[in-house]
Amino acid sequence: MDDIQHQQMGYDRAATMFAPDGHILQVEYAEKTVRLGSSSIGIVCKNSVVIVSDRRGRDKLVVEDSVNKINEVDDHIIAVFAGISSDARVLIDKARVLSQQHRVTYSSAPNTESIVRDIADIKQQFTQYGGARPFGVSMMFAGIDRAPALYTTDITGNYLKYKANAIGEKDEAIKKLLRDKYVDGMNSDEGVKMALDVFREVQGEKFEKDHFDIGILEKGKSLKINKKD
Amino acid sequence: MDDIQHQQMGYDRAATMFAPDGHILQVEYAEKTVRLGSSSIGIVCKNSVVIVSDRRGRDKLVVEDSVNKINEVDDHIIAVFAGISSDARVLIDKARVLSQQHRVTYSSAPNTESIVRDIADIKQQFTQYGGARPFGVSMMFAGIDRAPALYTTDITGNYLKYKANAIGEKDEAIKKLLRDKYVDGMNSDEGVKMALDVFREVQGEKFEKDHFDIGILEKGKSLKINKKD
Amino acid sequence: MDDIQHQQMGYDRAATMFAPDGHILQVEYAEKTVRLGSSSIGIVCKNSVVIVSDRRGRDKLVVEDSVNKINEVDDHIIAVFAGISSDARVLIDKARVLSQQHRVTYSSAPNTESIVRDIADIKQQFTQYGGARPFGVSMMFAGIDRAPALYTTDITGNYLKYKANAIGEKDEAIKKLLRDKYVDGMNSDEGVKMALDVFREVQGEKFEKDHFDIGILEKGKSLKINKKD
Amino acid sequence: MDDIQHQQMGYDRAATMFAPDGHILQVEYAEKTVRLGSSSIGIVCKNSVVIVSDRRGRDKLVVEDSVNKINEVDDHIIAVFAGISSDARVLIDKARVLSQQHRVTYSSAPNTESIVRDIADIKQQFTQYGGARPFGVSMMFAGIDRAPALYTTDITGNYLKYKANAIGEKDEAIKKLLRDKYVDGMNSDEGVKMALDVFREVQGEKFEKDHFDIGILEKGKSLKINKKD
Amino acid sequence: MDDIQHQQMGYDRAATMFAPDGHILQVEYAEKTVRLGSSSIGIVCKNSVVIVSDRRGRDKLVVEDSVNKINEVDDHIIAVFAGISSDARVLIDKARVLSQQHRVTYSSAPNTESIVRDIADIKQQFTQYGGARPFGVSMMFAGIDRAPALYTTDITGNYLKYKANAIGEKDEAIKKLLRDKYVDGMNSDEGVKMALDVFREVQGEKFEKDHFDIGILEKGKSLKINKKD
Amino acid sequence: MDDIQHQQMGYDRAATMFAPDGHILQVEYAEKTVRLGSSSIGIVCKNSVVIVSDRRGRDKLVVEDSVNKINEVDDHIIAVFAGISSDARVLIDKARVLSQQHRVTYSSAPNTESIVRDIADIKQQFTQYGGARPFGVSMMFAGIDRAPALYTTDITGNYLKYKANAIGEKDEAIKKLLRDKYVDGMNSDEGVKMALDVFREVQGEKFEKDHFDIGILEKGKSLKINKKD
Amino acid sequence: MDDIQHQQMGYDRAATMFAPDGHILQVEYAEKTVRLGSSSIGIVCKNSVVIVSDRRGRDKLVVEDSVNKINEVDDHIIAVFAGISSDARVLIDKARVLSQQHRVTYSSAPNTESIVRDIADIKQQFTQYGGARPFGVSMMFAGIDRAPALYTTDITGNYLKYKANAIGEKDEAIKKLLRDKYVDGMNSDEGVKMALDVFREVQGEKFEKDHFDIGILEKGKSLKINKKD
Repeated sequence: MDDIQHQQMGYDRAATMFAPDGHILQVEYAEKTVRLGSSSIGIVCKNSVVIVSDRRGRDKLVVEDSVNKINEVDDHIIAVFAGISSDARVLIDKARVLSQQHRVTYSSAPNTESIVRDIADIKQQFTQYGGARPFGVSMMFAGIDRAPALYTTDITGNYLKYKANAIGEKDEAIKKLLRDKYVDGMNSDEGVKMALDVFREVQGEKFEKDHFDIGILEKGKSLKINKKD
Repeated sequence: MDDIQHQQMGYDRAATMFAPDGHILQVEYAEKTVRLGSSSIGIVCKNSVVIVSDRRGRDKLVVEDSVNKINEVDDHIIAVFAGISSDARVLIDKARVLSQQHRVTYSSAPNTESIVRDIADIKQQFTQYGGARPFGVSMMFAGIDRAPALYTTDITGNYLKYKANAIGEKDEAIKKLLRDKYVDGMNSDEGVKMALDVFREVQGEKFEKDHFDIGILEKGKSLKINKKD
Repeated sequence: MDDIQHQQMGYDRAATMFAPDGHILQVEYAEKTVRLGSSSIGIVCKNSVVIVSDRRGRDKLVVEDSVNKINEVDDHIIAVFAGISSDARVLIDKARVLSQQHRVTYSSAPNTESIVRDIADIKQQFTQYGGARPFGVSMMFAGIDRAPALYTTDITGNYLKYKANAIGEKDEAIKKLLRDKYVDGMNSDEGVKMALDVFREVQGEKFEKDHFDIGILEKGKSLKINKKD
Repeated sequence: MDDIQHQQMGYDRAATMFAPDGHILQVEYAEKTVRLGSSSIGIVCKNSVVIVSDRRGRDKLVVEDSVNKINEVDDHIIAVFAGISSDARVLIDKARVLSQQHRVTYSSAPNTESIVRDIADIKQQFTQYGGARPFGVSMMFAGIDRAPALYTTDITGNYLKYKANAIGEKDEAIKKLLRDKYVDGMNSDEGVKMALDVFREVQGEKFEKDHFDIGILEKGKSLKINKKD
Repeated sequence: MDDIQHQQMGYDRAATMFAPDGHILQVEYAEKTVRLGSSSIGIVCKNSVVIVSDRRGRDKLVVEDSVNKINEVDDHIIAVFAGISSDARVLIDKARVLSQQHRVTYSSAPNTESIVRDIADIKQQFTQYGGARPFGVSMMFAGIDRAPALYTTDITGNYLKYKANAIGEKDEAIKKLLRDKYVDGMNSDEGVKMALDVFREVQGEKFEKDHFDIGILEKGKSLKINKKD
Repeated sequence: MDDIQHQQMGYDRAATMFAPDGHILQVEYAEKTVRLGSSSIGIVCKNSVVIVSDRRGRDKLVVEDSVNKINEVDDHIIAVFAGISSDARVLIDKARVLSQQHRVTYSSAPNTESIVRDIADIKQQFTQYGGARPFGVSMMFAGIDRAPALYTTDITGNYLKYKANAIGEKDEAIKKLLRDKYVDGMNSDEGVKMALDVFREVQGEKFEKDHFDIGILEKGKSLKINKKD
Repeated sequence: MDDIQHQQMGYDRAATMFAPDGHILQVEYAEKTVRLGSSSIGIVCKNSVVIVSDRRGRDKLVVEDSVNKINEVDDHIIAVFAGISSDARVLIDKARVLSQQHRVTYSSAPNTESIVRDIADIKQQFTQYGGARPFGVSMMFAGIDRAPALYTTDITGNYLKYKANAIGEKDEAIKKLLRDKYVDGMNSDEGVKMALDVFREVQGEKFEKDHFDIGILEKGKSLKINKKD
């Protein structure tokens, strides 16, 4: 059966239903929302992680400094997303609370992966239980634990640890370039440059350097966003 | 697939369902309700925020002073909306309670953004969980914190901070004019004048100056609505 | 799409669903029930509020004094409705309880608007949450606070303050006449006369003066219904 | 749209749904059940209330004395019904409990109307909330408070106070005759006679005097059913 | 509309739905299950009640003594049923618990009717609330209180007190004979004989005396089933 | 109406729905699952009960001793099933817990029938309440109380006590042979031989003696499965 | 009826529904998801259990060491899965918690089978209750209790103990080879070699030795994954 037939049969109406070929179609539709979102690149460098995010040409009525695509979860963890903004805010706020709860309970900063796993678990539940839709966001978390680390969670609540990765629009084309260009041991400036080069190559004429938010999380230093600290 | 097909397939029957292209159609339908509402303009000026709201030709049986489109949330926060009036009242009352709770708990006025975020979180939930419809309102909050600030929340529960913005009927045309005319550092009278000019240009012959509610929130002064204080 | 199409698509089956044009059709259907109800006029006079209610030709088996369309909520608040009688009774009983609770808690009579808002909030919830239908009533509350006041709530839970208003059958025609005839500062006898004149004009030959319940709430006096006190 | 169309559109499938013309069809269907039930007449006399109930030709295997259509709620309140017997039993048992609770709480007999209103409130809820069907009964309560009183509740939970009334099969024809014949101030024997006369006229050849249960509630006397006390 | 049409319209899909003619079709379907069950006759005699139950040709692999159709609820109450066996067991177990609770609470045997009413109330609820199907059993309770008594409950939860009655297959034909033959004041042997005679007449050639369970509940004696005590 | 029509009308979509002929189709479908399961024979002998279970040609990768079809519930109770294995495990685990709870509470072994009834009650509930499917298993319990006993529960939660019985594939053919061959007072070896003979006759060429699990529960001895103890 | 017909009738829309032939189609669809997953082989050796898992050609952007298909549940229990990764993570985390709870409660390591049964019970519930979909994973647990053991759970929550087994893509072909090649008493190196040989034979040209994760759990030694410990 092809897609149209699956739709006519109604297999795509609930996250709690498998289609005859084993797919969960509501999850696949939600992934389309992610692909409609503006894209971000994350790169693990030597002692740092770098995130470069396309914020597209933003409405000039919006206050410039008030929003950037890079969200601080804790001193040592940042997150970007592609998909539904309000869904993402809810999950990022949850991550912040989880991180503070860890600090209060254990008097130490949480490991980035433990935060990522908790958020991924929430996402998984919304793909299995009825009465709600899945969260329509893919998220990338960068953190400095003992070493810099980069994680990506998808709609289903799966997550993996990456050296470099991209989410959002044209993510496949971006990842192809990242696979070619990535080398271990870059410093953060080289990482930012590489990310912008990749965006330039993928976006072509539409590329404008001013349209990107740049976050640098360096070991022992405080978070820099767009070169401010 | 086009819209009609999506409707025939039933993707638009619940806020908990993604359409095959990743859209949540119930949210998009609710946005049409917002576009049917009368419009408001908010403008951040030097030390003040100004809101000008079209209240359309109101039934002369209604008591003039009893209703205006500008709702006081706290001494330093006001809100206007476009969409379903009773939905908006529920959210504005919630904002008032949240604001008072903050004052009681912390003995200080809440930051405008913290109130906006709480209201936006409520809106988000109604687009993700089943058993209820989304709130059919777009809202604009103006506040004086350390500086004047203007926020807008949409149906999905996303919010952004603006220098100037519009909600309701013909919002796109209004915003286009605002982008051309807006300058930083206006005083509140200039802000009101600019808003009325924009309305005059967009409404053409239908424009009547008496049909507008005007709210001015100035740093260190109490809220003025229609020039009274 | 026209109405028939909306019905065939099923947008009108639940209060929790928006139609593609942003309307909530269950609410609009419930409003038809209100328009089937017998009509009432409320008029704010100098120091008094007057309500005149068509009780239609009532079954002579019904005990005359036992029922009238004007319901006492508290010493200083009365209510009439158009629509489903039992729905209205539930809401009026709720209003009575809220009023008594206010008296017990604050040792003072509640403001009419605070009671109206609580009832309107209940109505709003029944248009947003699933598992129940909206209350099929429009209600008019008259009260004497510092000054006489008249409020009307619709199905959606919206409410406004009026100088004069009508609900139920032919409300639009009645309101048109009220707009022409209403003047500030009438005494209660003039108010009653005006309401009856309006009914006579709208009902034509069917008009019978005996078919109306008349309630007068005057500042500093006790409620008079059909001239008794 | 006519009835058939409403049915094809599914507006008649739940008590929580309004049809496009504002009707709640499940309630109207339930009313048909009431019209299928055997009929009862209630008449308020001087110092007494009389209820005469058609119990139709009952199966001779049923124990004669064990059942009659007239149910004692309290010393001073009786009830008859038309519709689904088990639904009625549940509500009558509820009325009995409410009456006893009042006696325990206030050390006095409850007013008949307060019991009727509580039962009517229960009925109303079953026409508004989902997950259950409306109670399929119309009920007539007779009581002696300061004066004799007669109340009737319909499916929707509305109730009115009557001088005389009928429920069940051919209720309209019976009520027409009652309107012609009823006079104030009858004694209980005249009341019973009038009710039987009305039944004789409406039932024609099928009328059999033995098929009726007769209840007389007289001020200061104990309840008599079929002339026993 | 005829039955087929009702089915096509879906009125028969839930116990919480009235059909346009006022019937609850799920209840009527459940009654068919009862008519498929093997039949029982109950007869009130002088100082005793007799129940004779067709247990049909039972599988010879089943242990003879382990099952009979007559269930002891308490020393003085027995029950038979027609319909779904497991549904009946649940209700009979409930009746046993209710009876023991009464004994513990009041130190006396419960009145048969109070047990019957509690069971009937449970049945009624399953015809009104959604989320479950009605109990698919008709039940006959025989008891010795001050006098011998026989009750029958139907699917809807209605119950009546009988001199003699039948449930299950061909109940109408059996009841017709009972009406002809029943006389007051039989002793229990005459009662059993009459029941077997009726079965013989209704079943014709298929009648086999060994296929019947016979229960005799006599005032002041212990229950005898198939002549054992 | 035939089966196909019932299916087209949707009567077979929920365990909470009766079809127009009084059947509960979901229960009947679940019974097909039972008929797909491998079969077991239970036989009551003198002072013992014997269960012989076809475990079919099992995957040689499975550990031989780890699984057999005969499950120990308590020292004196064993159970076999036909149908969905995981459903059966849940019920058998429940039976074990119930048995241990009885031992803890009463300091004695529970009667086999009390365990069977509790399990059957659970099964009944899953055929009456919505939101879950019926348990897809038929179960046979063998126990030694004062005497050896054998019970079978079906999908609906009905249970009967047997001298000998079969569940699963070709149960009707097996039971026919059992009716012919069964005699009272066999010893356990004769019982096992008889069961195997019946299987040989029913399975024909496919019969392989190694494919059967054999359980013997003998009064005063410990359970033997496949001749081990 | 064939598959297509079952789909058109809607039997495959909920895990709580049996199809007319007794199958639960949602469970069968979920099994297709499992067959789409990369495959794993488990082999019980002398004093050890070996698991070899195809991790396919993984994205080189993913951090090599961060993920492997073999998950440690406890010192002596490991798990692999085929199907939806996030579903599996939830179950494996649950297994870890259960294992730690056992250690805390009993001060001893849990038996592998007790952990497997708890996880299988959770899986079973999601195939019987509505409001959620079944877990889309098949899982293989290897453990060292008194002896090495290997268990596999399927979608329905059934589990069996194996000498050797495979899950995921081409599991049938792999199991066929395992049945031919498996011998008791191999050491762990022989076991790993055999698993890789089987993969080589089934995958043909696509086989690449580097694509496999290899876990060895040996009695008295700590877990080795890919030869590290």
